[in-house]
Amino acid sequence: MSAPGRLRIVGLGPGGAAWITPEASHLIANATDLVGYAPYLERLPPKQGQTRHQSGNRVEMERARHALRLVEDGRHVALVSCGDPGVFAMAAAVFEAIEEGEPGWRDIDVAVSPGISAMQAAAARTGAPLGHDFCAISLSDNRKPWSLVEQRLAAAATADFVIAVYNPASTARPRRIHDAIALLRGLKAASTPVVFARAVGRDDEHISIETLASADSARADMSTLIIVGSSETRVIPRVGATPFVYTPRGRPPDDGG
Amino acid sequence: MSAPGRLRIVGLGPGGAAWITPEASHLIANATDLVGYAPYLERLPPKQGQTRHQSGNRVEMERARHALRLVEDGRHVALVSCGDPGVFAMAAAVFEAIEEGEPGWRDIDVAVSPGISAMQAAAARTGAPLGHDFCAISLSDNRKPWSLVEQRLAAAATADFVIAVYNPASTARPRRIHDAIALLRGLKAASTPVVFARAVGRDDEHISIETLASADSARADMSTLIIVGSSETRVIPRVGATPFVYTPRGRPPDDGG
Repeated sequence: MSAPGRLRIVGLGPGGAAWITPEASHLIANATDLVGYAPYLERLPPKQGQTRHQSGNRVEMERARHALRLVEDGRHVALVSCGDPGVFAMAAAVFEAIEEGEPGWRDIDVAVSPGISAMQAAAARTGAPLGHDFCAISLSDNRKPWSLVEQRLAAAATADFVIAVYNPASTARPRRIHDAIALLRGLKAASTPVVFARAVGRDDEHISIETLASADSARADMSTLIIVGSSETRVIPRVGATPFVYTPRGRPPDDGG
Repeated sequence: MSAPGRLRIVGLGPGGAAWITPEASHLIANATDLVGYAPYLERLPPKQGQTRHQSGNRVEMERARHALRLVEDGRHVALVSCGDPGVFAMAAAVFEAIEEGEPGWRDIDVAVSPGISAMQAAAARTGAPLGHDFCAISLSDNRKPWSLVEQRLAAAATADFVIAVYNPASTARPRRIHDAIALLRGLKAASTPVVFARAVGRDDEHISIETLASADSARADMSTLIIVGSSETRVIPRVGATPFVYTPRGRPPDDGG
Protein backbone atom coordinates (compact mmCIF):
# COMPACT_ATOMS: atom_id res chain seq x y z
CA MET A 1 0.00 0.00 0.00
CA SER A 2 1.32 3.43 -0.91
CA ALA A 3 1.84 6.31 1.54
CA PRO A 4 -1.36 8.23 2.23
CA GLY A 5 -2.26 10.93 -0.26
CA ARG A 6 -4.15 14.09 0.40
CA LEU A 7 -6.59 16.42 -1.30
CA ARG A 8 -6.50 20.20 -1.12
CA ILE A 9 -9.37 22.11 -2.73
CA VAL A 10 -7.78 25.40 -3.67
CA GLY A 11 -9.30 28.73 -4.71
CA LEU A 12 -7.44 30.88 -7.25
CA GLY A 13 -9.61 33.94 -6.79
CA PRO A 14 -11.32 35.52 -9.78
CA GLY A 15 -8.41 37.11 -11.57
CA GLY A 16 -4.67 37.45 -11.58
CA ALA A 17 -1.91 36.25 -9.28
CA ALA A 18 -2.24 39.25 -6.93
CA TRP A 19 -5.38 37.70 -5.43
CA ILE A 20 -4.04 34.14 -4.98
CA THR A 21 -3.32 33.61 -1.28
CA PRO A 22 0.12 32.38 -0.15
CA GLU A 23 -1.62 29.26 1.20
CA ALA A 24 -3.09 28.51 -2.23
CA SER A 25 0.26 29.09 -3.98
CA HIS A 26 2.01 26.84 -1.50
CA LEU A 27 -0.52 24.03 -1.90
CA ILE A 28 -0.31 24.23 -5.70
CA ALA A 29 3.50 24.27 -5.70
CA ASN A 30 3.65 21.23 -3.42
CA ALA A 31 1.08 19.06 -5.19
CA THR A 32 2.11 16.05 -7.24
CA ASP A 33 -1.08 16.41 -9.28
CA LEU A 34 -3.24 19.34 -10.31
CA VAL A 35 -6.87 18.67 -11.21
CA GLY A 36 -9.19 21.31 -12.66
CA TYR A 37 -11.14 22.92 -15.44
CA ALA A 38 -8.66 23.57 -18.26
CA PRO A 39 -8.75 27.43 -18.29
CA TYR A 40 -7.95 27.55 -14.55
CA LEU A 41 -5.00 25.19 -14.89
CA GLU A 42 -3.72 27.37 -17.72
CA ARG A 43 -3.42 30.27 -15.27
CA LEU A 44 -0.75 28.35 -13.36
CA PRO A 45 2.93 28.11 -14.39
CA PRO A 46 4.05 24.60 -15.42
CA LYS A 47 6.18 22.72 -12.90
CA GLN A 48 8.51 19.85 -13.65
CA GLY A 49 7.31 16.50 -12.33
CA GLN A 50 3.80 17.74 -11.61
CA THR A 51 0.96 16.03 -13.50
CA ARG A 52 -2.04 17.98 -14.78
CA HIS A 53 -5.51 16.50 -15.18
CA GLN A 54 -7.75 18.83 -17.17
CA SER A 55 -11.48 18.52 -17.54
CA GLY A 56 -14.43 20.35 -19.05
CA ASN A 57 -16.58 22.61 -16.89
CA ARG A 58 -19.71 20.44 -16.87
CA VAL A 59 -18.25 17.37 -15.24
CA GLU A 60 -17.77 18.48 -11.65
CA MET A 61 -18.72 15.25 -9.93
CA GLU A 62 -16.53 13.27 -12.29
CA ARG A 63 -13.63 15.67 -11.63
CA ALA A 64 -14.15 15.34 -7.88
CA ARG A 65 -14.14 11.53 -8.06
CA HIS A 66 -11.04 11.58 -10.26
CA ALA A 67 -9.25 13.69 -7.63
CA LEU A 68 -10.33 11.32 -4.84
CA ARG A 69 -9.08 8.28 -6.76
CA LEU A 70 -5.69 9.95 -7.28
CA VAL A 71 -5.49 10.48 -3.51
CA GLU A 72 -6.21 6.78 -2.99
CA ASP A 73 -3.10 6.13 -5.09
CA GLY A 74 -1.05 8.19 -2.65
CA ARG A 75 -0.94 11.39 -4.71
CA HIS A 76 -0.91 14.88 -3.21
CA VAL A 77 -3.66 16.50 -5.22
CA ALA A 78 -4.54 20.18 -5.56
CA LEU A 79 -8.02 20.51 -7.06
CA VAL A 80 -8.08 24.08 -8.33
CA SER A 81 -11.19 26.21 -8.58
CA CYS A 82 -11.80 29.78 -9.67
CA GLY A 83 -12.90 32.22 -6.95
CA ASP A 84 -13.55 30.61 -3.58
CA PRO A 85 -14.02 26.83 -3.91
CA GLY A 86 -16.57 27.04 -1.08
CA VAL A 87 -18.88 29.51 -2.89
CA PHE A 88 -20.77 28.04 -5.86
CA ALA A 89 -17.70 26.03 -6.80
CA MET A 90 -15.87 22.71 -6.48
CA ALA A 91 -15.77 22.12 -2.71
CA ALA A 92 -19.43 21.10 -2.45
CA ALA A 93 -18.99 18.67 -5.35
CA VAL A 94 -16.08 16.99 -3.57
CA PHE A 95 -18.00 16.51 -0.33
CA GLU A 96 -20.98 15.22 -2.29
CA ALA A 97 -18.67 12.71 -4.02
CA ILE A 98 -17.27 11.69 -0.63
CA GLU A 99 -20.72 11.19 0.87
CA GLU A 100 -21.95 9.16 -2.10
CA GLY A 101 -18.68 7.31 -2.67
CA GLU A 102 -16.76 4.49 -1.09
CA PRO A 103 -16.78 4.44 2.74
CA GLY A 104 -12.97 4.77 2.78
CA TRP A 105 -13.20 8.18 1.13
CA ARG A 106 -14.44 9.66 4.42
CA ASP A 107 -11.01 9.00 5.92
CA ILE A 108 -9.15 10.89 3.18
CA ASP A 109 -7.07 13.86 4.33
CA VAL A 110 -9.04 16.66 2.64
CA ALA A 111 -9.06 20.39 3.31
CA VAL A 112 -10.34 23.53 1.62
CA SER A 113 -8.23 26.64 1.01
CA PRO A 114 -10.49 29.68 0.60
CA GLY A 115 -10.15 32.29 -2.15
CA ILE A 116 -11.55 35.67 -3.14
CA SER A 117 -14.99 35.09 -4.66
CA ALA A 118 -16.32 36.99 -7.69
CA MET A 119 -18.74 39.08 -5.62
CA GLN A 120 -15.90 40.36 -3.44
CA ALA A 121 -13.82 41.36 -6.44
CA ALA A 122 -16.82 43.08 -8.03
CA ALA A 123 -17.56 44.89 -4.77
CA ALA A 124 -13.93 46.00 -4.34
CA ARG A 125 -13.88 47.49 -7.84
CA THR A 126 -16.97 49.61 -7.27
CA GLY A 127 -16.76 50.68 -3.63
CA ALA A 128 -18.52 48.68 -0.91
CA PRO A 129 -21.90 47.51 -2.20
CA LEU A 130 -21.72 44.40 0.06
CA GLY A 131 -21.05 46.58 3.11
CA HIS A 132 -24.18 45.36 4.86
CA ASP A 133 -26.56 42.35 4.93
CA PHE A 134 -26.54 40.54 1.60
CA CYS A 135 -27.51 37.32 -0.17
CA ALA A 136 -25.64 35.35 -2.80
CA ILE A 137 -27.93 33.55 -5.24
CA SER A 138 -27.07 31.35 -8.22
CA LEU A 139 -29.54 31.59 -11.10
CA SER A 140 -28.54 28.13 -12.27
CA ASP A 141 -31.64 25.96 -12.26
CA ASN A 142 -30.02 22.66 -13.15
CA ARG A 143 -30.53 21.11 -9.75
CA LYS A 144 -33.17 23.38 -8.29
CA PRO A 145 -36.50 24.42 -9.77
CA TRP A 146 -36.74 27.95 -11.17
CA SER A 147 -39.62 28.53 -8.74
CA LEU A 148 -37.12 28.25 -5.86
CA VAL A 149 -34.85 30.82 -7.53
CA GLU A 150 -37.87 33.12 -7.79
CA GLN A 151 -38.82 32.51 -4.16
CA ARG A 152 -35.31 33.35 -2.97
CA LEU A 153 -35.05 36.48 -5.12
CA ALA A 154 -38.43 37.66 -3.82
CA ALA A 155 -37.47 36.95 -0.20
CA ALA A 156 -34.16 38.79 -0.60
CA ALA A 157 -35.88 41.78 -2.21
CA THR A 158 -38.71 41.94 0.32
CA ALA A 159 -36.33 41.76 3.31
CA ASP A 160 -34.16 44.41 1.60
CA PHE A 161 -30.91 42.46 1.31
CA VAL A 162 -28.24 43.45 -1.18
CA ILE A 163 -28.26 40.61 -3.75
CA ALA A 164 -25.17 39.15 -5.43
CA VAL A 165 -26.21 37.14 -8.48
CA TYR A 166 -23.99 34.27 -9.69
CA ASN A 167 -24.46 32.30 -12.92
CA PRO A 168 -26.70 34.95 -14.51
CA ALA A 169 -26.69 33.29 -17.92
CA SER A 170 -25.56 30.23 -19.76
CA THR A 171 -25.56 29.23 -23.38
CA ALA A 172 -28.47 26.94 -22.67
CA ARG A 173 -30.49 29.49 -20.66
CA PRO A 174 -29.51 33.02 -21.71
CA ARG A 175 -32.72 34.62 -20.49
CA ARG A 176 -32.76 33.76 -16.79
CA ILE A 177 -31.11 37.05 -15.76
CA HIS A 178 -33.77 38.85 -17.79
CA ASP A 179 -36.47 37.03 -15.85
CA ALA A 180 -34.72 37.73 -12.53
CA ILE A 181 -34.43 41.46 -13.24
CA ALA A 182 -38.08 41.59 -14.31
CA LEU A 183 -39.05 39.99 -10.99
CA LEU A 184 -36.90 42.40 -8.97
CA ARG A 185 -38.34 45.41 -10.85
CA GLY A 186 -41.73 44.46 -9.47
CA LEU A 187 -40.44 44.46 -5.88
CA LYS A 188 -37.77 47.16 -5.63
CA ALA A 189 -37.40 50.85 -6.49
CA ALA A 190 -36.49 51.64 -10.10
CA SER A 191 -33.56 53.73 -8.82
CA THR A 192 -31.92 50.78 -7.02
CA PRO A 193 -28.22 50.66 -8.01
CA VAL A 194 -27.16 47.60 -10.03
CA VAL A 195 -23.51 46.66 -10.71
CA PHE A 196 -22.57 44.52 -13.72
CA ALA A 197 -19.03 43.26 -13.20
CA ARG A 198 -17.59 41.20 -16.01
CA ALA A 199 -14.29 39.27 -15.87
CA VAL A 200 -13.04 41.17 -12.80
CA GLY A 201 -9.27 40.93 -12.43
CA ARG A 202 -8.81 39.74 -16.00
CA ASP A 203 -7.60 41.69 -19.04
CA ASP A 204 -11.11 42.13 -20.38
CA GLU A 205 -12.58 43.39 -17.10
CA HIS A 206 -15.61 45.62 -17.56
CA ILE A 207 -17.67 47.31 -14.84
CA SER A 208 -20.96 49.04 -15.45
CA ILE A 209 -23.12 50.81 -12.89
CA GLU A 210 -26.80 50.96 -13.72
CA THR A 211 -30.12 51.21 -11.97
CA LEU A 212 -32.77 48.53 -11.83
CA ALA A 213 -34.71 50.58 -14.42
CA SER A 214 -31.77 50.91 -16.82
CA ALA A 215 -30.21 47.47 -16.24
CA ASP A 216 -29.76 45.71 -19.56
CA SER A 217 -29.76 41.97 -18.98
CA ALA A 218 -28.05 41.46 -22.33
CA ARG A 219 -24.87 42.75 -20.63
CA ALA A 220 -24.68 39.61 -18.50
CA ASP A 221 -22.83 36.61 -19.83
CA MET A 222 -21.44 33.61 -17.97
CA SER A 223 -18.45 35.69 -16.76
CA THR A 224 -20.61 38.38 -15.19
CA LEU A 225 -21.37 38.91 -11.51
CA ILE A 226 -24.29 41.22 -10.74
CA ILE A 227 -24.92 43.10 -7.50
CA VAL A 228 -28.38 44.56 -6.91
CA GLY A 229 -28.45 47.11 -4.09
CA SER A 230 -30.72 47.35 -1.06
CA SER A 231 -32.89 50.42 -0.43
CA GLU A 232 -29.93 51.85 1.49
CA THR A 233 -27.29 51.33 -1.21
CA ARG A 234 -25.93 54.67 -2.35
CA VAL A 235 -24.17 55.99 -5.44
CA ILE A 236 -21.58 58.78 -5.05
CA PRO A 237 -21.25 60.65 -8.35
CA ARG A 238 -17.75 61.84 -9.27
CA VAL A 239 -16.49 64.24 -11.91
CA GLY A 240 -14.79 62.41 -14.77
CA ALA A 241 -14.72 59.08 -12.96
CA THR A 242 -16.91 56.06 -12.31
CA PRO A 243 -19.19 56.66 -9.32
CA PHE A 244 -18.65 54.81 -6.05
CA VAL A 245 -21.38 52.42 -4.86
CA TYR A 246 -21.68 51.47 -1.20
CA THR A 247 -24.11 50.13 1.36
CA PRO A 248 -23.77 51.72 4.80
CA ARG A 249 -23.16 49.35 7.68
CA GLY A 250 -23.85 49.28 11.39
CA ARG A 251 -21.33 51.34 13.30
CA PRO A 252 -19.35 49.17 15.75
CA PRO A 253 -17.31 46.26 14.38
CA ASP A 254 -17.92 43.83 17.22
CA ASP A 255 -16.18 40.99 15.44
CA GLY A 256 -13.46 43.26 14.26
CA GLY A 257 -15.10 43.13 10.80
CA MET B 1 0.66 71.70 -2.65
CA SER B 2 2.06 68.24 -2.00
CA ALA B 3 2.02 65.38 -4.51
CA PRO B 4 -1.30 63.53 -4.51
CA GLY B 5 -1.75 60.86 -1.91
CA ARG B 6 -3.82 57.74 -2.17
CA LEU B 7 -5.93 55.48 0.00
CA ARG B 8 -5.98 51.71 -0.19
CA ILE B 9 -8.51 49.87 1.99
CA VAL B 10 -6.85 46.54 2.59
CA GLY B 11 -8.21 43.24 3.91
CA LEU B 12 -5.93 41.05 6.03
CA GLY B 13 -8.25 38.04 6.04
CA PRO B 14 -9.36 36.49 9.32
CA GLY B 15 -6.19 34.81 10.47
CA GLY B 16 -2.54 34.37 9.72
CA ALA B 17 -0.28 35.52 6.92
CA ALA B 18 -1.14 32.54 4.69
CA TRP B 19 -4.48 34.17 3.84
CA ILE B 20 -3.17 37.70 3.14
CA THR B 21 -3.18 38.22 -0.63
CA PRO B 22 -0.02 39.37 -2.44
CA GLU B 23 -1.91 42.53 -3.41
CA ALA B 24 -2.64 43.32 0.24
CA SER B 25 0.97 42.63 1.27
CA HIS B 26 2.25 44.85 -1.53
CA LEU B 27 -0.06 47.72 -0.61
CA ILE B 28 0.90 47.50 3.06
CA ALA B 29 4.62 47.36 2.28
CA ASN B 30 4.39 50.41 0.02
CA ALA B 31 2.29 52.62 2.26
CA THR B 32 3.80 55.59 4.06
CA ASP B 33 1.08 55.31 6.71
CA LEU B 34 -0.92 52.44 8.15
CA VAL B 35 -4.26 53.20 9.77
CA GLY B 36 -6.31 50.63 11.67
CA TYR B 37 -7.71 49.07 14.78
CA ALA B 38 -4.71 48.33 17.04
CA PRO B 39 -4.91 44.47 17.09
CA TYR B 40 -4.89 44.36 13.27
CA LEU B 41 -1.86 46.62 13.00
CA GLU B 42 -0.10 44.41 15.53
CA ARG B 43 -0.39 41.51 13.07
CA LEU B 44 1.91 43.36 10.65
CA PRO B 45 5.72 43.49 10.92
CA PRO B 46 7.11 46.96 11.70
CA LYS B 47 8.73 48.79 8.79
CA GLN B 48 11.24 51.60 9.04
CA GLY B 49 9.90 54.99 8.01
CA GLN B 50 6.28 53.84 8.02
CA THR B 51 3.94 55.62 10.41
CA ARG B 52 1.21 53.76 12.30
CA HIS B 53 -2.07 55.32 13.38
CA GLN B 54 -3.91 53.05 15.79
CA SER B 55 -7.49 53.46 16.93
CA GLY B 56 -10.13 51.69 18.98
CA ASN B 57 -12.73 49.51 17.30
CA ARG B 58 -15.75 51.75 17.91
CA VAL B 59 -14.57 54.79 16.00
CA GLU B 60 -14.86 53.67 12.40
CA MET B 61 -16.04 56.95 10.90
CA GLU B 62 -13.36 58.85 12.78
CA ARG B 63 -10.72 56.39 11.56
CA ALA B 64 -11.98 56.74 7.97
CA ARG B 65 -11.82 60.54 8.14
CA HIS B 66 -8.35 60.41 9.66
CA ALA B 67 -7.18 58.26 6.74
CA LEU B 68 -8.73 60.67 4.21
CA ARG B 69 -7.04 63.67 5.83
CA LEU B 70 -3.67 61.91 5.65
CA VAL B 71 -4.25 61.36 1.94
CA GLU B 72 -4.95 65.09 1.56
CA ASP B 73 -1.48 65.66 2.98
CA GLY B 74 -0.01 63.55 0.20
CA ARG B 75 0.43 60.35 2.19
CA HIS B 76 0.06 56.86 0.72
CA VAL B 77 -2.28 55.32 3.25
CA ALA B 78 -3.17 51.65 3.78
CA LEU B 79 -6.27 51.42 5.94
CA VAL B 80 -6.18 47.86 7.21
CA SER B 81 -9.22 45.81 8.09
CA CYS B 82 -9.72 42.26 9.29
CA GLY B 83 -11.39 39.86 6.86
CA ASP B 84 -12.67 41.48 3.66
CA PRO B 85 -12.97 45.27 4.09
CA GLY B 86 -16.03 45.13 1.83
CA VAL B 87 -17.99 42.72 4.07
CA PHE B 88 -19.21 44.24 7.37
CA ALA B 89 -15.95 46.16 7.66
CA MET B 90 -14.13 49.42 6.96
CA ALA B 91 -14.77 50.03 3.26
CA ALA B 92 -18.39 51.14 3.73
CA ALA B 93 -17.31 53.55 6.49
CA VAL B 94 -14.78 55.17 4.15
CA PHE B 95 -17.30 55.70 1.37
CA GLU B 96 -19.79 57.05 3.87
CA ALA B 97 -17.12 59.49 5.09
CA ILE B 98 -16.40 60.50 1.48
CA GLU B 99 -20.07 61.09 0.72
CA GLU B 100 -20.63 63.14 3.88
CA GLY B 101 -17.25 64.90 3.77
CA GLU B 102 -15.60 67.68 1.82
CA PRO B 103 -16.40 67.73 -1.91
CA GLY B 104 -12.69 67.30 -2.73
CA TRP B 105 -12.66 63.90 -1.05
CA ARG B 106 -14.59 62.46 -4.01
CA ASP B 107 -11.51 63.03 -6.18
CA ILE B 108 -9.19 61.08 -3.88
CA ASP B 109 -7.46 58.07 -5.40
CA VAL B 110 -9.13 55.33 -3.36
CA ALA B 111 -9.38 51.59 -4.00
CA VAL B 112 -10.38 48.49 -2.08
CA SER B 113 -8.28 45.32 -1.91
CA PRO B 114 -10.49 42.34 -1.05
CA GLY B 115 -9.68 39.72 1.58
CA ILE B 116 -10.93 36.38 2.86
CA SER B 117 -13.97 37.04 5.04
CA ALA B 118 -14.71 35.18 8.28
CA MET B 119 -17.55 33.15 6.75
CA GLN B 120 -15.25 31.80 4.04
CA ALA B 121 -12.63 30.74 6.56
CA ALA B 122 -15.30 29.10 8.73
CA ALA B 123 -16.72 27.31 5.68
CA ALA B 124 -13.29 26.11 4.54
CA ARG B 125 -12.57 24.62 7.95
CA THR B 126 -15.77 22.56 8.05
CA GLY B 127 -16.33 21.50 4.43
CA ALA B 128 -18.55 23.55 2.12
CA PRO B 129 -21.58 24.81 4.06
CA LEU B 130 -21.76 27.91 1.79
CA GLY B 131 -21.79 25.73 -1.32
CA HIS B 132 -25.16 27.04 -2.41
CA ASP B 133 -27.43 30.10 -2.00
CA PHE B 134 -26.69 31.91 1.26
CA CYS B 135 -27.21 35.14 3.17
CA ALA B 136 -24.78 37.07 5.36
CA ILE B 137 -26.48 38.92 8.22
CA SER B 138 -25.00 41.08 10.95
CA LEU B 139 -26.83 40.88 14.27
CA SER B 140 -25.53 44.32 15.20
CA ASP B 141 -28.50 46.57 15.81
CA ASN B 142 -26.65 49.80 16.35
CA ARG B 143 -27.78 51.39 13.12
CA LYS B 144 -30.74 49.20 12.22
CA PRO B 145 -33.73 48.24 14.36
CA TRP B 146 -33.76 44.70 15.78
CA SER B 147 -37.09 44.21 13.98
CA LEU B 148 -35.22 44.44 10.65
CA VAL B 149 -32.72 41.82 11.84
CA GLU B 150 -35.69 39.59 12.71
CA GLN B 151 -37.35 40.23 9.35
CA ARG B 152 -34.16 39.31 7.48
CA LEU B 153 -33.56 36.16 9.55
CA ALA B 154 -37.16 35.07 8.95
CA ALA B 155 -36.94 35.77 5.20
CA ALA B 156 -33.66 33.86 4.94
CA ALA B 157 -35.10 30.91 6.88
CA THR B 158 -38.38 30.82 4.96
CA ALA B 159 -36.65 30.94 1.56
CA ASP B 160 -34.26 28.23 2.81
CA PHE B 161 -30.97 30.09 2.42
CA VAL B 162 -27.88 29.03 4.33
CA ILE B 163 -27.30 31.87 6.83
CA ALA B 164 -23.89 33.25 7.85
CA VAL B 165 -24.25 35.27 11.05
CA TYR B 166 -21.75 38.08 11.77
CA ASN B 167 -21.50 40.04 15.03
CA PRO B 168 -23.45 37.46 17.04
CA ALA B 169 -22.69 39.10 20.37
CA SER B 170 -21.13 42.10 21.96
CA THR B 171 -20.35 43.08 25.50
CA ALA B 172 -23.30 45.46 25.41
CA ARG B 173 -25.76 42.97 23.85
CA PRO B 174 -24.67 39.40 24.66
CA ARG B 175 -28.13 37.91 24.14
CA ARG B 176 -28.89 38.79 20.53
CA ILE B 177 -27.56 35.45 19.17
CA HIS B 178 -29.80 33.72 21.71
CA ASP B 179 -32.79 35.61 20.33
CA ALA B 180 -31.77 34.89 16.74
CA ILE B 181 -31.44 31.15 17.38
CA ALA B 182 -34.80 31.11 19.16
CA LEU B 183 -36.38 32.75 16.12
CA LEU B 184 -34.74 30.28 13.70
CA ARG B 185 -35.85 27.31 15.84
CA GLY B 186 -39.43 28.34 15.17
CA LEU B 187 -38.89 28.33 11.40
CA LYS B 188 -36.40 25.56 10.61
CA ALA B 189 -35.96 21.86 11.39
CA ALA B 190 -34.37 21.04 14.75
CA SER B 191 -31.81 18.87 12.92
CA THR B 192 -30.48 21.79 10.81
CA PRO B 193 -26.65 21.81 11.04
CA VAL B 194 -25.13 24.84 12.80
CA VAL B 195 -21.41 25.68 12.72
CA PHE B 196 -19.82 27.79 15.45
CA ALA B 197 -16.41 28.97 14.22
CA ARG B 198 -14.39 30.96 16.69
CA ALA B 199 -11.14 32.81 15.88
CA VAL B 200 -10.58 30.89 12.64
CA GLY B 201 -6.97 31.02 11.51
CA ARG B 202 -5.75 32.19 14.91
CA ASP B 203 -4.00 30.20 17.64
CA ASP B 204 -7.18 29.86 19.67
CA GLU B 205 -9.33 28.63 16.75
CA HIS B 206 -12.25 26.48 17.82
CA ILE B 207 -14.86 24.87 15.59
CA SER B 208 -18.01 23.22 16.85
CA ILE B 209 -20.68 21.50 14.78
CA GLU B 210 -24.12 21.47 16.35
CA THR B 211 -27.74 21.30 15.30
CA LEU B 212 -30.30 24.05 15.70
CA ALA B 213 -31.72 22.04 18.61
CA SER B 214 -28.37 21.62 20.38
CA ALA B 215 -26.85 25.01 19.49
CA ASP B 216 -25.69 26.76 22.64
CA SER B 217 -25.72 30.50 22.06
CA ALA B 218 -23.35 30.96 24.98
CA ARG B 219 -20.63 29.58 22.68
CA ALA B 220 -20.78 32.74 20.56
CA ASP B 221 -18.62 35.68 21.48
CA MET B 222 -17.54 38.63 19.37
CA SER B 223 -14.92 36.50 17.59
CA THR B 224 -17.43 33.85 16.50
CA LEU B 225 -18.94 33.37 13.04
CA ILE B 226 -22.01 31.14 12.88
CA ILE B 227 -23.34 29.29 9.85
CA VAL B 228 -26.89 27.91 9.97
CA GLY B 229 -27.58 25.38 7.22
CA SER B 230 -30.42 25.21 4.72
CA SER B 231 -32.75 22.20 4.54
CA GLU B 232 -30.28 20.69 2.06
CA THR B 233 -27.14 21.14 4.18
CA ARG B 234 -25.67 17.76 5.04
CA VAL B 235 -23.34 16.38 7.71
CA ILE B 236 -20.97 13.52 6.83
CA PRO B 237 -20.03 11.62 10.00
CA ARG B 238 -16.45 10.34 10.20
CA VAL B 239 -14.75 7.91 12.54
CA GLY B 240 -12.48 9.69 15.00
CA ALA B 241 -12.66 13.02 13.19
CA THR B 242 -14.86 16.10 12.99
CA PRO B 243 -17.71 15.57 10.52
CA PHE B 244 -17.80 17.42 7.20
CA VAL B 245 -20.65 19.88 6.58
CA TYR B 246 -21.67 20.84 3.05
CA THR B 247 -24.52 22.25 1.03
CA PRO B 248 -24.91 20.65 -2.41
CA ARG B 249 -24.81 23.03 -5.36
CA GLY B 250 -26.25 23.13 -8.84
CA ARG B 251 -24.19 21.03 -11.19
CA PRO B 252 -22.66 23.15 -13.98
CA PRO B 253 -20.34 26.03 -13.03
CA ASP B 254 -21.42 28.47 -15.72
CA ASP B 255 -19.33 31.28 -14.31
CA GLY B 256 -16.50 28.96 -13.58
CA GLY B 257 -17.42 29.20 -9.89
